[in-house]
Amino acid sequence: MGDFRVVLVEPEHEGNVGAVARAMGNFAFDDLCMVNPCPLGDEALKRAKHAGHILSNAMIVDTVDEAVKGCSLVVGTTGIVTHGPKRYVRIPMPARELAARTADHEGRIALLFGREGLGLTQEELARCDLLAHIPSSEEYPTLNLSHAVSIVLYELFQTRGRRISRNPVSSEEERELLYKYFARLLVAIDYPEFRRHNTEVMFRRMMGRSVPTKWEFYTIMGVIGDAAKLIEKSKK
Amino acid sequence: MGDFRVVLVEPEHEGNVGAVARAMGNFAFDDLCMVNPCPLGDEALKRAKHAGHILSNAMIVDTVDEAVKGCSLVVGTTGIVTHGPKRYVRIPMPARELAARTADHEGRIALLFGREGLGLTQEELARCDLLAHIPSSEEYPTLNLSHAVSIVLYELFQTRGRRISRNPVSSEEERELLYKYFARLLVAIDYPEFRRHNTEVMFRRMMGRSVPTKWEFYTIMGVIGDAAKLIEKSKK
Repeated sequence: MGDFRVVLVEPEHEGNVGAVARAMGNFAFDDLCMVNPCPLGDEALKRAKHAGHILSNAMIVDTVDEAVKGCSLVVGTTGIVTHGPKRYVRIPMPARELAARTADHEGRIALLFGREGLGLTQEELARCDLLAHIPSSEEYPTLNLSHAVSIVLYELFQTRGRRISRNPVSSEEERELLYKYFARLLVAIDYPEFRRHNTEVMFRRMMGRSVPTKWEFYTIMGVIGDAAKLIEKSKK
Repeated sequence: MGDFRVVLVEPEHEGNVGAVARAMGNFAFDDLCMVNPCPLGDEALKRAKHAGHILSNAMIVDTVDEAVKGCSLVVGTTGIVTHGPKRYVRIPMPARELAARTADHEGRIALLFGREGLGLTQEELARCDLLAHIPSSEEYPTLNLSHAVSIVLYELFQTRGRRISRNPVSSEEERELLYKYFARLLVAIDYPEFRRHNTEVMFRRMMGRSVPTKWEFYTIMGVIGDAAKLIEKSKK
């Protein structure tokens, strides 16, 4: 289970950070990374219990980009499920589905958990390949941070037996290239400028949800890239 | 979801009690009972967040017998799974199985959670109708109390409260239209004929895996359709 990285974005309470480390130990994860965490002291260590080593080996960085470096898939978690088909930025899949879909993913997957109060920002969410959430009461959907981490890791742990490596998946660089071609295609077809960003994010999400193989990525990139270039050329 | 009672047996840390109340609120449970709890003060209330009412309405009793009064099934939870067929006292079922098995149970079910340090005693376990546990790492199986409660309630919520209304997904006709546009795009960009069929199937599979909403389908269809038409036009 060394293929997941738990990324805490600006955690505010060291007790939560310690409890996250313990939960990681409970479900056999050990790669913890924090983006600008609160000061970590005795309380964090106390709450980590027998998982203190996860805490002391944790990577601390300044930006989300550094935190997800080398990861082939970036998963954002959100407590808020916005209804309505147009709220594409916030259509997360349940944690159980995330576990099933990533069961045979090769490469490292970053799991982003946001601040206790505010979660992940719109910008951070837009950067994610897919979103996950924990189905909970509509009246009080916001879980404690360490509980949320715990439940997601629990779900991932349940599928560990089914992790059979199948097809190599595309790297981050490859995907960024595809997204660039898609953006070029939007410009080429004179897609309304005010809708471009949303449509780009939507496309990224759809690709993320389908967890394409390397081959699938190259194929779709070829089609989109050729279409963009042909239209650009015909315009000259 | 009023058919479960969460029973904490001699909890030692008020912070945990508060976190349990919050987790109950998150998964729509409200019947909390404590057997000889530690003193409960500000810390418990703080950790309960918006579920303070669950804490203040909790029943406090002296014995497990009082706590489970009126319940038609008593479930004990244990972090220790003793192997071997003769250790009948400690053969628990996974939390997920518990959720499935109790899904159509009528009457109130008591869920017993033991002390942070020692769990439930042999005597308390013997009193239970069935035992449940949370599958976890063999190296560090002991979860924080509130995390354990949270995961069990999460599992119960999954089988009872499927409340997340899904966004409308595209119809078969709509999808066929998208696939037709994609096929047209392949022809327009002079995609090698012998590869067309495979690439069409691949695209269909990717779309199928990402289960797009109606809106996502229309958006991506717009982009692909416009690209195909533009290239066709430029060729004339």
